[in-house]
Amino acid sequence: MRGIVLFAHGARDPEWAQPVRRLAGLVAAADAGARIEIAFLEHLQPPLEQAVAKLVQQGIGDVTVVPVFIAEGGHLKQDLPRIVEDIRRTHTHLVIRLAPPIGDSAAVLEAMAAYASAASHGTKSAK
Amino acid sequence: MRGIVLFAHGARDPEWAQPVRRLAGLVAAADAGARIEIAFLEHLQPPLEQAVAKLVQQGIGDVTVVPVFIAEGGHLKQDLPRIVEDIRRTHTHLVIRLAPPIGDSAAVLEAMAAYASAASHGTKSAK
Repeated sequence: MRGIVLFAHGARDPEWAQPVRRLAGLVAAADAGARIEIAFLEHLQPPLEQAVAKLVQQGIGDVTVVPVFIAEGGHLKQDLPRIVEDIRRTHTHLVIRLAPPIGDSAAVLEAMAAYASAASHGTKSAK
Repeated sequence: MRGIVLFAHGARDPEWAQPVRRLAGLVAAADAGARIEIAFLEHLQPPLEQAVAKLVQQGIGDVTVVPVFIAEGGHLKQDLPRIVEDIRRTHTHLVIRLAPPIGDSAAVLEAMAAYASAASHGTKSAK
């Protein structure tokens, strides 16, 4: 069993987490071989360390952190690698991988492009 | 001719804009009936007012602002409607529409879910 942590920025507004939760549900439904957790950099709970610890407690030895970020700025270039290094020091037997942010995926950008175009036509598919 | 502004958060790191630019290229390629501009809330240029003004100068009377945000927090609930109200006061003949954020789109979330699952398998399609 693999582990996936969907790691998002977070915001003061707790509703901000909703699409991240929906995304976790979609990944869980599509990937029976993975346990899915969500985690946030700021404001919302849990932090990444805690989400990873939860997977480790379930006996999972292989975790991929997927940044649910549009793009790579200081948070992903500096903050995230530092957090992951700390996690590696705590869980020395864990294999932890860091994926590029979702905005790096051509398929994700294509879906966003189709959404933007549909939204400007005012069609139902905009939602 | 419609106008679409892809409105993203922005970051101190200028490289942060790259996926937003790629996205603009994809929308432009797929939607010949629209002029595409990008705009940022913070740190990067141009701001939304300026991107909209550029479209208006080209004779475009119908602009859709598409928030390239994972989710709706204070920035989209408070800041963006205020900026759009100011734009409406400046360009009284312009029809300006505000789309829900891209993280509201089921198709976008599905593409993100497929990406997350592929990334945890370490497959090429992760990128």
